[in-house]
Amino acid sequence: MGEVIARLAMSLDGYVAGPESGREHPLGIGGERLHSWVYGLRTFRQMQGMTGGETGPDDALIAEHVARPGAVVMGHGMFITGEIPWGDEPPFHAPVFVVTHHPREPLVREGGTTFHFVTEGPERALELARAAAGDKDVSLAGGADLVQQFIRNGWLDELLLHVVPVLACGGRRLFDNLGGLGDPDSPRDSGHRHIEWEKTLVLDSPGVTHIRLRAPHTVSAE
Amino acid sequence: MGEVIARLAMSLDGYVAGPESGREHPLGIGGERLHSWVYGLRTFRQMQGMTGGETGPDDALIAEHVARPGAVVMGHGMFITGEIPWGDEPPFHAPVFVVTHHPREPLVREGGTTFHFVTEGPERALELARAAAGDKDVSLAGGADLVQQFIRNGWLDELLLHVVPVLACGGRRLFDNLGGLGDPDSPRDSGHRHIEWEKTLVLDSPGVTHIRLRAPHTVSAE
Repeated sequence: MGEVIARLAMSLDGYVAGPESGREHPLGIGGERLHSWVYGLRTFRQMQGMTGGETGPDDALIAEHVARPGAVVMGHGMFITGEIPWGDEPPFHAPVFVVTHHPREPLVREGGTTFHFVTEGPERALELARAAAGDKDVSLAGGADLVQQFIRNGWLDELLLHVVPVLACGGRRLFDNLGGLGDPDSPRDSGHRHIEWEKTLVLDSPGVTHIRLRAPHTVSAE
Repeated sequence: MGEVIARLAMSLDGYVAGPESGREHPLGIGGERLHSWVYGLRTFRQMQGMTGGETGPDDALIAEHVARPGAVVMGHGMFITGEIPWGDEPPFHAPVFVVTHHPREPLVREGGTTFHFVTEGPERALELARAAAGDKDVSLAGGADLVQQFIRNGWLDELLLHVVPVLACGGRRLFDNLGGLGDPDSPRDSGHRHIEWEKTLVLDSPGVTHIRLRAPHTVSAE
């Protein structure tokens, strides 16, 4: 069975989207700044159906990451903000399982992306994605709420953070609502735990610092 | 005139202290975890009046940083939680200007540390610290509230972050309350700005990733 992996661009102050993210501003106001380092890379351009672009360590890291998933899990909020900008050929090129409360027939797009709408919760979406991915990995695309849910439940195996040296000063935080982890019957579970990660790679570039982390396990903090 | 510098250990999710920080838990519950990488280093041990300890890149970075300040600015909360644990010879070895609402005679400790209590606000504390430091730098010791105030006012020249690969899941965030920067009469100042930093150094060690940042300047995000 493959692993569950995610990659997210994050400001120094922990935001993955600017304020007022939604249909009008898919990345939130100013949120494009978090991704400016990636737009020129060859792998990113290829995913958007474009040619050319820069190669080098940043591109190699992204290429390695995006080759791994055989299926994608995504939150409803990310789907509704992305549906229009992604256009006819979304950059996933794999089945995408959208966690939603709204039943809908699968949406088949070009380039191998089909959106499946799963109304039985994130665990069921993950189960379906694992089955679709086979031996390959499952990519957790976001948004932040769903990533938090995966972290709380211990479902995420690897996280590749792209830390951008800017303070967004507002928007959607990646790491939030993580208190009260673990056994809900334990009196220790009042937010006084922390989650240790294994840092497996740090790759620094002028505009971004990549930090790859493995398999969190929860530790009591007292 | 010297610069204003700060160094802070921060969890991946942005916390510089665990929950319930105060006299009982100076670093917050579990907050020691953020500093475990530093306790064994020679420079840190020297500051505490101890001998021995590890040398190497981490230690060299800390040694370079702690040699710079000629005076320190500190918030009242940090002073009251630190006063007892720091003991007779606090690790500052320089005049410390505490921003507080409570007037008090200067408190002279051993090893060159004298705490001065400044009731005229942080700008006045910084002015006094600059005068005391002469050509040397001023160290901003914390806590988070005071660092935020310095960032909002553009008083901080350099920030050395020690990013520890753990999710604290609660406590005191370093980067918070930074919305609404700049001219308060401008309708743009509703949190939709970001602050660009220049990343001048990334040094990775097994237990910590050091990121040094220079002189933020504010950019409109739209």
